[in-house]
Amino acid sequence: MTVLVIGSIALDSLETPFGTAENVLGGAGSYFSLAASTLTAVQLVGVVGSDLDERHLDTLRAHGVDLQGLQRVANGKTFRWKGRYEYDMNVAHTLDTQLNVFGNFQPNLPEAYRETKYVYLANITPRLQLDVLDQVRHPKFVGVDSMNFWIGNPDTKADLTEVIKRVNGVFMNDGEIRQYTGKYNLFEAAREVLALGPQVVLMKKGEHGAAAVSRDGVFVAAAYPLDSVMDPTGAGDSFAGGFMGHLSESGDTSWDGIKRAMIFGSVVASFAVETFGTDGLLKMTRDAIHDRYEVLRQCTMFESLAKPSAAST
Amino acid sequence: MTVLVIGSIALDSLETPFGTAENVLGGAGSYFSLAASTLTAVQLVGVVGSDLDERHLDTLRAHGVDLQGLQRVANGKTFRWKGRYEYDMNVAHTLDTQLNVFGNFQPNLPEAYRETKYVYLANITPRLQLDVLDQVRHPKFVGVDSMNFWIGNPDTKADLTEVIKRVNGVFMNDGEIRQYTGKYNLFEAAREVLALGPQVVLMKKGEHGAAAVSRDGVFVAAAYPLDSVMDPTGAGDSFAGGFMGHLSESGDTSWDGIKRAMIFGSVVASFAVETFGTDGLLKMTRDAIHDRYEVLRQCTMFESLAKPSAAST
Repeated sequence: MTVLVIGSIALDSLETPFGTAENVLGGAGSYFSLAASTLTAVQLVGVVGSDLDERHLDTLRAHGVDLQGLQRVANGKTFRWKGRYEYDMNVAHTLDTQLNVFGNFQPNLPEAYRETKYVYLANITPRLQLDVLDQVRHPKFVGVDSMNFWIGNPDTKADLTEVIKRVNGVFMNDGEIRQYTGKYNLFEAAREVLALGPQVVLMKKGEHGAAAVSRDGVFVAAAYPLDSVMDPTGAGDSFAGGFMGHLSESGDTSWDGIKRAMIFGSVVASFAVETFGTDGLLKMTRDAIHDRYEVLRQCTMFESLAKPSAAST
Repeated sequence: MTVLVIGSIALDSLETPFGTAENVLGGAGSYFSLAASTLTAVQLVGVVGSDLDERHLDTLRAHGVDLQGLQRVANGKTFRWKGRYEYDMNVAHTLDTQLNVFGNFQPNLPEAYRETKYVYLANITPRLQLDVLDQVRHPKFVGVDSMNFWIGNPDTKADLTEVIKRVNGVFMNDGEIRQYTGKYNLFEAAREVLALGPQVVLMKKGEHGAAAVSRDGVFVAAAYPLDSVMDPTGAGDSFAGGFMGHLSESGDTSWDGIKRAMIFGSVVASFAVETFGTDGLLKMTRDAIHDRYEVLRQCTMFESLAKPSAAST
């Protein structure tokens, strides 16, 4: 199957304790697309300016990303983000954001995209996310991401609540879900979001992994244990790309399917953060993803006490 | 089997966003003992003053904790700790510490304790931990805990390194292991500690669970997903109590045994933090521990991709 993503294509400038990069391909839409494209077909809807080097689009095309829905604004400037990470790379410090052409973005889905069954609304204004929801016809699973900026404003928060009521999966990091619900405990907070209607809440906890909460229970996915994290940019969207990519290829949105998709998310995010920018995603293969899936299984599996071999006292 | 613990018995005064408690039974030795005693026999070596209400010791005795090695100092005052937790309960703010009789503590193990096979050196000066190691004869598994205060001073850090070289399991939280090694990445840091000789490094990450690193690999144990955390005091020592308690009852210090013990640690810690002070540990039963063990298994297990049922594409 195919997954449709609406999100930013950006030029990122990054500083981490391990190095810097200037004007590299970034943005939620790019990270998500590259993360998912090893697993499934991807349609990317977004906007770029005339200044975006064609080779960045060639990179996306070379990974099978369909760019039919990409708008290019003549004389416009591409969205730019400049950020720095300190030694504690769980926190990004934004140095500069230039929305540029992204500020007037109006997503308009090509006719062929409107029947796509798996849809990811990356972090844009909730109003635009609602516009996209009005354009897709019979989606099987829609995931949404957001950010503190929209949650902090009562108007955009109200729009976001409307979005949440209409989607299947809500991706939030721990800070965002606490801000949205005003509840400190993550599981309590997740259940409050669930009560609005979605099937599952997907909480990203950076280096500590992710947790899913649904009416079927709680599932905790460990982060893949990496020896070196170079650049956490795009980790959340890469997680979502692995997650949605697997759902789209398996077609299994049951609770067991969601659990497997969480592990794909964790594994795909590990490739994203161990190198600079999108390099890790570009080199990632299906075999490498499957290998890390099994390693992560080894790192988290333990025997039931019910088994005779584990009995004691 | 039996587990021997050397650690503090304290009178704690606590403030959390959910309430306060005055002069309740606390200290690493108390938490560890109560955490382990549901699973195994416990010998507690520590020191108290004449001001400690006998009912606190009766509480320990009622849970099967052997107090033969407890010193009571006439006219001495018991160790007191006063702490506060903000909304983010991963961080304790110490308001007051009075070492009192604990400042001159010299552990002297009763003859019967010197043959005990499972030993936990709770957080005391590394010099005293070395004294205890000189007194035990053929331990099968010794675990050690420490804190930032001893790691920050070059002399006590050197002593701690000597301790680490002589034990099997090193318990450290993420801040401590980063401080000790100067490495930010937890897995890299753990391998540096492993190189000193211990069998396993046990990294506690508060609400995010714990990870074990050994020569056999990495194991990540999720925290038990609680809806309510009232008081994180003693979480680390309760984790260690569940861990060592299970090792002592199973006698299995293999990598698989360590993994199971990590889950016991996670589960036992969950009982400790969901109520004030030691209340949760006092009410905990073996059946309740086993139930949460299986729930945690449900919350973390996922299928191998190798299974036909999970095959796709």
